Amino acid sequence: MVPTEMDGRKLTAYQGAFANPLGKGNRAAPPIPRSFPAHAGGENKLLKDIKEAILKTGLKDGMTISFHHHLRNGDYVVNMVVDAIAELGIRDITLAPTALFPCHAPLIEHLKSGVIRNIQGSMNGPIGEFVSYGNMPTCAILRTHGGRVRAIEDGDLHIDVAFIAAPCADDYGNANGVYGPSVCGPLAYGAIDAQYADKVVIVTDYLVRFPCLPISIPSTHVDYVVKVDKIGDSNQIVSGTTKITRSPARLFIAELAAKFIKESPYYRDGMGFQTGAGGISLAVTKHLGDYMRQDGIKAAFINGGITKFAVDLFREGIVEKLFDGQVFDTDSIDSFREDLWHHETPMTMYANVHSKGCLVNRQDIGFLGATEVDVDYNVNVNTHSDGLLLHGIGGHTDVAAGAQLCMIVIPAYRKRIPIIRDAVTTVTTPGETIDVIVTEMGICINPLRKDLLEHFKNSALPIRDIRDVKKQVDGICGGQPTPPKLGDRVVALIEYRDGTIIDSVRQVLK
Amino acid sequence: MVPTEMDGRKLTAYQGAFANPLGKGNRAAPPIPRSFPAHAGGENKLLKDIKEAILKTGLKDGMTISFHHHLRNGDYVVNMVVDAIAELGIRDITLAPTALFPCHAPLIEHLKSGVIRNIQGSMNGPIGEFVSYGNMPTCAILRTHGGRVRAIEDGDLHIDVAFIAAPCADDYGNANGVYGPSVCGPLAYGAIDAQYADKVVIVTDYLVRFPCLPISIPSTHVDYVVKVDKIGDSNQIVSGTTKITRSPARLFIAELAAKFIKESPYYRDGMGFQTGAGGISLAVTKHLGDYMRQDGIKAAFINGGITKFAVDLFREGIVEKLFDGQVFDTDSIDSFREDLWHHETPMTMYANVHSKGCLVNRQDIGFLGATEVDVDYNVNVNTHSDGLLLHGIGGHTDVAAGAQLCMIVIPAYRKRIPIIRDAVTTVTTPGETIDVIVTEMGICINPLRKDLLEHFKNSALPIRDIRDVKKQVDGICGGQPTPPKLGDRVVALIEYRDGTIIDSVRQVLK
Repeated sequence: MVPTEMDGRKLTAYQGAFANPLGKGNRAAPPIPRSFPAHAGGENKLLKDIKEAILKTGLKDGMTISFHHHLRNGDYVVNMVVDAIAELGIRDITLAPTALFPCHAPLIEHLKSGVIRNIQGSMNGPIGEFVSYGNMPTCAILRTHGGRVRAIEDGDLHIDVAFIAAPCADDYGNANGVYGPSVCGPLAYGAIDAQYADKVVIVTDYLVRFPCLPISIPSTHVDYVVKVDKIGDSNQIVSGTTKITRSPARLFIAELAAKFIKESPYYRDGMGFQTGAGGISLAVTKHLGDYMRQDGIKAAFINGGITKFAVDLFREGIVEKLFDGQVFDTDSIDSFREDLWHHETPMTMYANVHSKGCLVNRQDIGFLGATEVDVDYNVNVNTHSDGLLLHGIGGHTDVAAGAQLCMIVIPAYRKRIPIIRDAVTTVTTPGETIDVIVTEMGICINPLRKDLLEHFKNSALPIRDIRDVKKQVDGICGGQPTPPKLGDRVVALIEYRDGTIIDSVRQVLK
Repeated sequence: MVPTEMDGRKLTAYQGAFANPLGKGNRAAPPIPRSFPAHAGGENKLLKDIKEAILKTGLKDGMTISFHHHLRNGDYVVNMVVDAIAELGIRDITLAPTALFPCHAPLIEHLKSGVIRNIQGSMNGPIGEFVSYGNMPTCAILRTHGGRVRAIEDGDLHIDVAFIAAPCADDYGNANGVYGPSVCGPLAYGAIDAQYADKVVIVTDYLVRFPCLPISIPSTHVDYVVKVDKIGDSNQIVSGTTKITRSPARLFIAELAAKFIKESPYYRDGMGFQTGAGGISLAVTKHLGDYMRQDGIKAAFINGGITKFAVDLFREGIVEKLFDGQVFDTDSIDSFREDLWHHETPMTMYANVHSKGCLVNRQDIGFLGATEVDVDYNVNVNTHSDGLLLHGIGGHTDVAAGAQLCMIVIPAYRKRIPIIRDAVTTVTTPGETIDVIVTEMGICINPLRKDLLEHFKNSALPIRDIRDVKKQVDGICGGQPTPPKLGDRVVALIEYRDGTIIDSVRQVLK
């Protein structure tokens, strides 16, 4: 269900994972800036506070501002900037963050008062819920990691001012995430904003003597720098350690998934895979490491989302290289800062279908989560069965399209609610790009993957038809859940990575 | 003497170092590419040879191709590609390399036969000489390092196909210059070409398993990869070691320059400077290191052109960080590969006046060479007093504009030809951006720098008026050299870093 127009923008419906109907024309062209030295009138970029920066950038009613989410649920910068915008009396702002978290709940007041008019970006938690109930006057747009950079590079999403939280920076705008009290690792989500926004403001709490190295965001892209007391709560930015699931059912899912990978044609010396930070995903990674160690083979790379589990395999030499778009724990930050072959991956390199070669295309294997899957292998990661929009897409759809073997590793039900549905509440990732779904009930191979079905036909693994599994789960849970009460109004669009609209999210009626 | 139009392009004359009359509008917008995985019809980028790559890129008569010069006088790639273009019957090509060297003399045959119609880039040696005599049907354009990237980013120089020599690459196009038989260090000159050219071809002689790390050129910017037997002669790419001058006169110049720096307001903890690979420049660097060691102060960075002398100071801890656009010896390559704070500097970061903050603006000190200077402090680095165009600009004009203290360190005469002239044969770098000229005859401070004249008024150093020095040199040499016999035809334009034309080079009559 995709509208043909929304908030004045003409929409193109999804036409297949690689139809790419919008891949024409030229990229966006930012304004030509200038760079003069101080002795020739070059401005000092270091300003006294956020308000001065907002005024200097010329931010006005109706403009679009952006943020990255490397500080996750510990971020102070989004609220700080929007508060200042509100105090300056600026209204009708479009917020285009990579993602918002529960810590950003104070934005709800700014939505109510009209300071914020639109959000384009992931909304994890309360703001998603607020939008679900139809409380935003415009329609949200959710994009994948690769889809967001595509939208910016292609000119679909124009950012007037990017505010980039930086754990470490110099007064010229060179910035990184690896030194200071609020370390977060890479600044890979902010790279495209720095490159394309008309104006770019670095917000840091750790100003170092010029030049700041390493450079994740270069001075060539930065207009202003502001030093604040604190950009975030370090306890919430990354966890001290990431932990493997202890649930026996989930450990069993991980074991099944790892065994499936080992038997697949993709388990080989030189393979590359992606692993997230979820409990099941970590357990799969650990199993894979054990297999590789036993078999004496090495993975060429992990593409991530990096955790201590990936770093341990890397430092042991079982995995040769790490590509890092974000980190989830402090050990990973240490490795990211010190190890030459632990490489920062800007999102366009990670997953932009409108680049000349993104990393997800070279992944052999990806294992991903879901809130729901359906018997056509469609995956929902955005809404729950109650219709509430509570999660962003992340790189889910990108990895599914790129990886040769894309596996969903999930429990078959949660709190007596079946996860395998007749039809998912929201299609985030199209079934044609999902190869395998692994639950504690067995392993389901997408019928489109005849090659995999053939390869596994004599396997001792519990390969099952997804409709049979669904029937069994429905039996355990007492049937499919009651559909949520939805209104007609579309409150959010799910944009596929190529810019088409794959689904829409309707208002939840209370 | 600047024409108002050339080869169909309307020219704007130089209007002052920071007048910036062309800094308007938007940057160039390359075509939107696409990136599909192999299982969805994504092409294999690895092609069998250069000819296949040329055909795949769609290169046609009249198009523009580019190259970087990191392989210097050891480069095989330029000749290899242009030979293949000639064999394919393609003509009227514009060559836009960062620089050509004597090893590229075979291109002269392609100029004669009409395969090459125009060159925009530095021409060191025989090709410059060939152009000087009026043998190219069009007018050459010489740009500074910063000016070339500006021209590409602003859309003045559109590159149809960039051929990027890469000492190390994978089959997806990720490339670096630090592994393999033909190492050259950074690939910083090629970065902008990769970003803006319609098509990009990596040419390597060392193909590694995906993924190639570190990444100087990312796969996101690369269309094709070709493996050839050899991309260059490693003995000519970098020297084993760079050597300090042994000439007593030049050592004296270096000593004067270093003493001047030490007495200047710019000699302080946290300063940044640039040093080249010339014999005098290396000697200044060495002296500066000695002073800093004695005085217990540290430089924050060297911006370069990196040599063993810079690396030694860096590893000793006297210099905290190295910015590296090119290396001149093998020791520097080792440091560049291994040291986290030895950072690759793409040219737009180095010196683009149309960026938001380039490095030269943050240099306290730069010491540079010249073929001639004049009593108005204008500098020529392109032509000799015989009018022949034998050298490129490099970063000369960029550093002069950016650095707070720009010093020219040169002998007052060479082979009985005065280097200090009434007027330079060609204005490469405007006198208003040159602060000090140091020769063995003394130190001349530009009268525009009243602050420096005041600062040094009680100095024991031999501070002299440049007209007095010139008079003395003329006495030694028997007067100024006979002016060359020049025709009316303009054979090359000297483009200032902001895109205006600061001077033109006229045909030399035999």
